[in-house]
Order: sequence, then structure tokens, then C-alpha cells
Amino acid sequence: MTQVKEFKEYRLRMNKKILDGDNKVIKRIFSADTMAYDKGALSCKTKELLGLVSSLVLRCDDCVKYHLEKCLDLNTTTEEIHEVFSIAMLVGGTIVIPHTRRAVEFWDELSNQNDR
Amino acid sequence: MTQVKEFKEYRLRMNKKILDGDNKVIKRIFSADTMAYDKGALSCKTKELLGLVSSLVLRCDDCVKYHLEKCLDLNTTTEEIHEVFSIAMLVGGTIVIPHTRRAVEFWDELSNQNDR
Amino acid sequence: MTQVKEFKEYRLRMNKKILDGDNKVIKRIFSADTMAYDKGALSCKTKELLGLVSSLVLRCDDCVKYHLEKCLDLNTTTEEIHEVFSIAMLVGGTIVIPHTRRAVEFWDELSNQNDR
Amino acid sequence: MTQVKEFKEYRLRMNKKILDGDNKVIKRIFSADTMAYDKGALSCKTKELLGLVSSLVLRCDDCVKYHLEKCLDLNTTTEEIHEVFSIAMLVGGTIVIPHTRRAVEFWDELSNQNDR
Amino acid sequence: MTQVKEFKEYRLRMNKKILDGDNKVIKRIFSADTMAYDKGALSCKTKELLGLVSSLVLRCDDCVKYHLEKCLDLNTTTEEIHEVFSIAMLVGGTIVIPHTRRAVEFWDELSNQNDR
Amino acid sequence: MTQVKEFKEYRLRMNKKILDGDNKVIKRIFSADTMAYDKGALSCKTKELLGLVSSLVLRCDDCVKYHLEKCLDLNTTTEEIHEVFSIAMLVGGTIVIPHTRRAVEFWDELSNQNDR
Repeated sequence: MTQVKEFKEYRLRMNKKILDGDNKVIKRIFSADTMAYDKGALSCKTKELLGLVSSLVLRCDDCVKYHLEKCLDLNTTTEEIHEVFSIAMLVGGTIVIPHTRRAVEFWDELSNQNDR
Repeated sequence: MTQVKEFKEYRLRMNKKILDGDNKVIKRIFSADTMAYDKGALSCKTKELLGLVSSLVLRCDDCVKYHLEKCLDLNTTTEEIHEVFSIAMLVGGTIVIPHTRRAVEFWDELSNQNDR
Repeated sequence: MTQVKEFKEYRLRMNKKILDGDNKVIKRIFSADTMAYDKGALSCKTKELLGLVSSLVLRCDDCVKYHLEKCLDLNTTTEEIHEVFSIAMLVGGTIVIPHTRRAVEFWDELSNQNDR
Repeated sequence: MTQVKEFKEYRLRMNKKILDGDNKVIKRIFSADTMAYDKGALSCKTKELLGLVSSLVLRCDDCVKYHLEKCLDLNTTTEEIHEVFSIAMLVGGTIVIPHTRRAVEFWDELSNQNDR
Repeated sequence: MTQVKEFKEYRLRMNKKILDGDNKVIKRIFSADTMAYDKGALSCKTKELLGLVSSLVLRCDDCVKYHLEKCLDLNTTTEEIHEVFSIAMLVGGTIVIPHTRRAVEFWDELSNQNDR
Repeated sequence: MTQVKEFKEYRLRMNKKILDGDNKVIKRIFSADTMAYDKGALSCKTKELLGLVSSLVLRCDDCVKYHLEKCLDLNTTTEEIHEVFSIAMLVGGTIVIPHTRRAVEFWDELSNQNDR
């Protein structure tokens, strides 16, 4: 479970440090980020899948991890996750593969953690 | 209706020219591209939304137009499309805005065409 | 003067259409965008130069045009603009050159407009 | 032949305007750009193919056009060009397809011009 | 030799996990990836150099490592590799330098391994 | 102080290895890189801020670290750095946040080192 836990702790600690800078624009972006994934015309789950595929094609490992966590919380299945991976890999090319390797590893850790 | 029609014709004509090159790898990518958006664990509509948001954050106007067409065919509402735009703009930044301007314009043309 | 004027009109018309979608996240991003270039610890001019160089390395022609307009309003000289171009071309590579060609053309139109 | 000719004239005119800015860094990048494609351990043709594939995956239409011109001058065949396209599309994803459409169109114009 | 070995083992293990997901699109992309670097109109070596330069400008360290391995197997010289680096750095900008640092380190390990 | 020191040593060692390759184009890019941040029409500090924001939106952690070092040497305040972060995050999107987390951590180490 180490990778998942370390990731969460580092993210929280550093997000706090960023927000402590008290920059108005940054705070507005963070609040928009929370708002964007709220239920609207689209369901929370669809929105998290959109966040996941965007993070994959833009090749942001930490963003991928964050959305994988949320996807698991919303009962996304492994098969659904692989369909997101397939679209990301097709649209974004084989350079997405190394990020998919890390995503698969993280998803595994997350899923096993949840089994408990 | 000119923009929609011109876009479709150019895409078809040039895709044909690409495939006439008879390159095995390119043909395989084109066939995977068709397959990726078929119904699977995720619905066709969800997959098209994933294709749309990926195209927006990667800032590919022609890909955006293609997925907007498909989204309309699958009865996606304007409100849903705007939620996809909002996630793209948040994740991909304000550089996505000029592409959103062109997307909004194309969506309008498409929707009006459909009204008829 | 056509290019400058057309660009402004299209941007305004389409931004309106985007905001008419009444999406909360998009509206928040637009308001953060206005706020970000206000005077703060850094001057307005420095901030516009930051916006310009970011737009160049991310290769967003419309964003470049927008920031060039603002830079001219803030009395940035052609020599300063070329130093921004040089850093963009160095950091972002020769793929920035075609965008610099269009930037130079737009800057010329803007400057001549101002002479009047 | 219009597209090829227009592209060349615009590029020359605007490159001149950029260099007239007399910025030392920009001039050094332009001279490095000339030097990079000279024969070395790798042949000129291999280097132009490297320039072409880089331009395609970075999705720079004008850079693609430039390298296609050079490739034709060095007797690259259409089959070789399609193999470069296939690697670009695989590594860079389907977002490279719209750029390949424009590349195929330009290559056709170039080749027909040469037949004369 | 640790870095080279670790990289290979992780890649194999995770590629297996990805393919175990049994997604048709992903499997097709993997098979196209193998096919793309087969001898065709262009030699295997030229194709690997194309894969290498694409990976560098797209800044994918793991893809760079993979192609460096293949390049060494095909008797590419260090001087040739540096010419690929130079084109990548020129086209992709100085942001390619940190990836070149890691590439140079990996190439060294690979080459020394081969001396034995 | 470990992170700062390790980063500097690795960068120096590997830059040396790159330059030992004795490639003319690479050497010219490195010399242009030094020249670009010299005082000109814009101050050294403004130029370093331009380098910093470009590195952030292009998401190059090592480039960010390098420019943070230079910014500190030129007496940039934490508030100014946060304004650069805010523009990078707005223009480049939330995918810049993970890089900002690492930048904030590095800036902290750098600043504390300087207190001594």
C-alpha cells in the first residue's frame, strides 16, 4: 500500500504549501477544480473518466493517480478503466504506454487496498 | 452549413489518399480507431465524450470537430458538451479557449443543420 | 488592419457564446484569467510578457495575438518583444518559428495601427 | 502549385522580418538549424527524415511542409514518406492524422510540380 | 548495469499486465508497434532512429530508453546517436536537454554492458 | 539540502558528458542558452521569470529547478514566484499543479539554504 499512501500524503502536504502562498488566482483554480467534477448534466463517474483520459493523453502521472482513486471510489470496473486506457493510447500514441504501465500498477495497488 | 460539409469532404478525400499509400501500420491504426469507439463496458456516448475531451486538451481542432459530429449523432446535449469543455479548459488551461471558440462555432452549425 | 480587427471580433463573439453556455467552471476560469494579469508583486507588463512567452512555447497563435495586443498597450518595445521570442524559440525549439513568423506579422499590423 | 509557392514566399518574407530584429540568440538558432541537417555521421536524407518525423509528432504543419520539400530534393520515395507517417502516427497517436492529411496533400503538390 | 536491467524487467512485467486486460484496441496498438519497426522501404536502423528522435521531442524517457536499446543492437555509433540528440534538441528546444542527460547516462550503461 | 545539491551535481556531470560528444549543433544550442538570459532590453530577472514560466507550462521539472535557482540569486521574492506559478497554472491548466508541488518543495529547500 506504500505507493498509494505516499502519493496522498505528498499531495496534501504540498497542496497546503501552495495554498499557503495565498495567491488569489491559484485559489480560484483550486476551487474550480473541485467544482468541475461535481454532478451536473454528466454524472460524477463520467466526469472522472474524462479527467482520467485527459490526464493520460497529457501524460501527467500524478493526475492519473488522482483520478484513478476517484474512479475506484465511484465503482469503476477494471474493464472500464482499460477502455479509457485504450482511447488514451490510441489518441495520444504509444508515448502514453509508459504512463499506462504506471497507471496499471497504481490501479492494482488501489484495488487490492479496497479488497480489505 | 459550409464549414461542416467542407470539413467532411476534405477528411474523406484525404483519408482515402492516406490509405491508398497501402501502409500496413497506418491501416491497422485506422481500424483500431474505428474499433475503439464501439460499445463495450462503456457506452458509445461515453467513449465519444472521452474522444472529445482528449482532442480538446491535445488541441486538435479537426479531431474535436469529428467527435462533435459523433456526439450529436448520439444525442448529446449542449449542456453536456459544455461540461466537457469545462473539464478540458480546467485540465488543459486557457490555451484550450481558442479551440473551444472554434468548437462552439462548429457545434452551432452542426446543431442547426440537425434542426432541419 | 483587417487581421487585427477580425481577430478581435471573432474572439469577442465566440467568448460570448461560450459564456452564454452558463457553465460555472468556465465562468470561474474566465474570471481567474482577468485577475491573473492584474498588477501584483509583479507589474502588469511583466505578467503580459509571461503570458506571451507561455503562449509561444505552447504554440497557441490566438493566445499570442491576445498578449501582443496587451503588450503594445503597455508600451513594450519591439526589441523587448524579440527578446521574448528568443527565449520562446530557445526553450520551445524551432517548432516555435512558424508561430513567431505569424507573431511578427501581427505585431507589425498592431504597431502600424498605433502609429495613426 | 499555389500552396507550395505561397508557403515558400511567406516563410522567406517572415524569416527575413524575424532576422531583421537583429537578436543574437535568434540568429544563432537559425544558424544551428542550417548546420543540423548537413551531412555528418548520418546522411542528409536520414536527417531530413528525422526532422520530418519530429515535426509530425509535434504537429507543426509548416515544419512538416519544409521537411517534405527537402525530402523530395533528396529523392525520398512516396513509400518511404508513408513509413515516416506510420511511425509518427503510431508514436504520436491519432491526433497526428489531421496533420498527415495536410502532409499528404502537400506532398502531392510537390511531387506533381517536380514531374514537370 | 542495474538501471538497464530494472527498466527491462519493469517494462516486461507491466506490459504483460496491460495485455492481460485483454482489450482488443490495446492489443492492436501493441501489434502495430512491433510491425512499424520491421524492415520496409526504410531500414530497421533508420526506423529506430525515427522512433528515438520522436521519443526525445515528445520527452518520453522510457520510450527513449527502449529505442536506445534497439539502436545499439543495430550497431548505431555514439556519434550517430549524438546527431539524433542534436536534431531533437534543436527542433524540441532546451526542454529536451534534461531528457538528453538521462539518455546519455542510459546509453553509457548500455554500451558498457555490451563491451563485456 | 540534499535535493538541491544532487540536482546540481547530476546536471553538471551529464552536461559535461553531452558536450564531450563534441557535436557542433549541441554546443551552439548550449552557448545560445547562456546568451539568452544575459541582460538586454529586458532585465536578467525578467528573463529568468520568462524561463521559469516556460519551463512550468512545458512541464519540465529540471528546467523549473534550474530557473528557480537563478531567480533566487536575483532576489526574486516568494510572492513573485507564486505569481509566476499562478500564470503557469492558468495558461497550462491543472496538469501544471503536480509540477508546482515539486517547484514549491525545491524553492523551500533553496530558500532555507540561502538563510544560512
